[in-house]
Amino acid sequence: MTITLALDAMGGDEAPTMVIAGADLALKCCSDQLHFRIFGRSEVISGVLASFPKLERCSEIIHTDEVITNHIKPSLALRNGRTSSMGQAVNDVALGKSHAVISAGNTGAYMALSKILLKTFDQIDRPAIPAFIPTLKGKTLVLDLGANIECSPENLVQFAVMGSSYVKQLIHISNPSIGLLNVGSEELKGNAVVQEASRVLKDLKDLNFYGFVEGDHITKGVTDVVVTDGFTGNITLKAIEGTAKLFGQFLKDGINSSWKGKLGYLLAKPVFDNLKHRCDPRLYNGAMFLGLRQIAIKSHGGTDAIGFANAISVAIQLVQQNILQDMENSLAGVT
Amino acid sequence: MTITLALDAMGGDEAPTMVIAGADLALKCCSDQLHFRIFGRSEVISGVLASFPKLERCSEIIHTDEVITNHIKPSLALRNGRTSSMGQAVNDVALGKSHAVISAGNTGAYMALSKILLKTFDQIDRPAIPAFIPTLKGKTLVLDLGANIECSPENLVQFAVMGSSYVKQLIHISNPSIGLLNVGSEELKGNAVVQEASRVLKDLKDLNFYGFVEGDHITKGVTDVVVTDGFTGNITLKAIEGTAKLFGQFLKDGINSSWKGKLGYLLAKPVFDNLKHRCDPRLYNGAMFLGLRQIAIKSHGGTDAIGFANAISVAIQLVQQNILQDMENSLAGVT
Repeated sequence: MTITLALDAMGGDEAPTMVIAGADLALKCCSDQLHFRIFGRSEVISGVLASFPKLERCSEIIHTDEVITNHIKPSLALRNGRTSSMGQAVNDVALGKSHAVISAGNTGAYMALSKILLKTFDQIDRPAIPAFIPTLKGKTLVLDLGANIECSPENLVQFAVMGSSYVKQLIHISNPSIGLLNVGSEELKGNAVVQEASRVLKDLKDLNFYGFVEGDHITKGVTDVVVTDGFTGNITLKAIEGTAKLFGQFLKDGINSSWKGKLGYLLAKPVFDNLKHRCDPRLYNGAMFLGLRQIAIKSHGGTDAIGFANAISVAIQLVQQNILQDMENSLAGVT
Repeated sequence: MTITLALDAMGGDEAPTMVIAGADLALKCCSDQLHFRIFGRSEVISGVLASFPKLERCSEIIHTDEVITNHIKPSLALRNGRTSSMGQAVNDVALGKSHAVISAGNTGAYMALSKILLKTFDQIDRPAIPAFIPTLKGKTLVLDLGANIECSPENLVQFAVMGSSYVKQLIHISNPSIGLLNVGSEELKGNAVVQEASRVLKDLKDLNFYGFVEGDHITKGVTDVVVTDGFTGNITLKAIEGTAKLFGQFLKDGINSSWKGKLGYLLAKPVFDNLKHRCDPRLYNGAMFLGLRQIAIKSHGGTDAIGFANAISVAIQLVQQNILQDMENSLAGVT
């Protein structure tokens, strides 16, 4: 099977270079036939593409004049952004010309365009954004990361079902355990929304619901999926990122503070490299907007070619696994 | 001035040894005259106290038969717990015999007993629990950490005012900056509660309100105080703790995985020691229940003598600073 992917070449801090270099990396690692439809300013794209002859042979450039910047509001993107590289790339999936779209551009604009052009499943108001977090046991999927600031119990149940399907398809865990984020593990803890969501989740036969999990259970890897509203999820994910950065800075300060520190660092470099590798955000890059009827993958804007290649690999795996059918079936089972 | 402190000798995993050893450490470090009133089983306490002759001379033991365990619910603690070591220690402050009480016991029971016996300020329904978090710039106070699961805008405003007063008195920052935790820094972000709280906070003349802060701004040290509801605060704090533990474990794994790692660790030990020291939870131990008319300090249950001594030092500083008057005045200014 040839997998056709629509790339927004103009989104992301280092675009279009990292997009194209990322596609080249993905091409090298993928055993499937790949075809790229690359959207953006053709003169810029073709210049970069010339350095990657193998990629050039399986790519076509679709020229667009317009680019969605990081500061455009979603509403404006909806009005004026459909002819942009991002809008055209998303629409390519709607038209059935590509199997999936990947963009590292403006998240709000991308979400709005994807929602309108690719449509959501009947039950879903607004797609959720998931992210994998490194844990003591491997990695855990956390959602929602900010798309849905206020959530009903029904929203949380939908997140649980979609998260389960996503993890099943993407990292091949056959019956992923689902935790609901709360202030304590005991049954009576929390607010009315998590209480009601927990009650419903317990009754879903096809779902491996673990129960409530606490903030530190995420990085402990207590469950494969952690479900929460977009307010708490966004703040928690950023707090985790911030703590990782704090630790990194404290280590750097210590290393640079003395000759002994620097020498020890050189000797123990594999230790630090291993730490860096296990927490490398590029290896966790690429998240599907969960709840859409087609596959749209969001890459971090600040990533490089390795990170973008990872986002492409997420798209490829999801296309191969036929995740949309599984997710639609699972959602149908809860309503 | 002699400062008299009521200690619940029976609360905490390593009680009463760590309580008494902690008091001895505090005594060695404090320039003020200290007097300890130690509540709990006298035969156990006197046995431990015998090893600390200097402490013994400025302590008295008040025998209680009962002890509040970790599994007792707050409601039961209220009904039956007043004669326990914790209940008696709290009541000692209510009776004016001690300036402050410190316990490492059951948080829910301690909060309930303190609320009933020491009373809250008129505006406060339920005291908030703050905690200091290490940051790139020093430390930041985060509250509430779980006492108030559902918060109104008024609650958040009260937390801001009390947090400001607490930081001012405890770590001598003259005009602490206050951030309101949200999913983005832009004015229009977030839910109705943080929007309304932000509107009120902007108008408070005596408060240095910075605006919204995001999850990663906590460890960056963007503001001196970060205000949030108890649901988000509890999860965020535990997520930060969990991430620190993950990092520590990844480092340990790396060090133990090879001879080179182990040798590098030995050489760079000061680096790791420095990291450990900067994140040492014992140095952040001891939090006042904010909103009470008297001083009750909660110590972590799992801490040791150093951590308990730190909690005692928090009590001493707050007694010296006359924090209660400052807090009452500040709260009066917002209602």
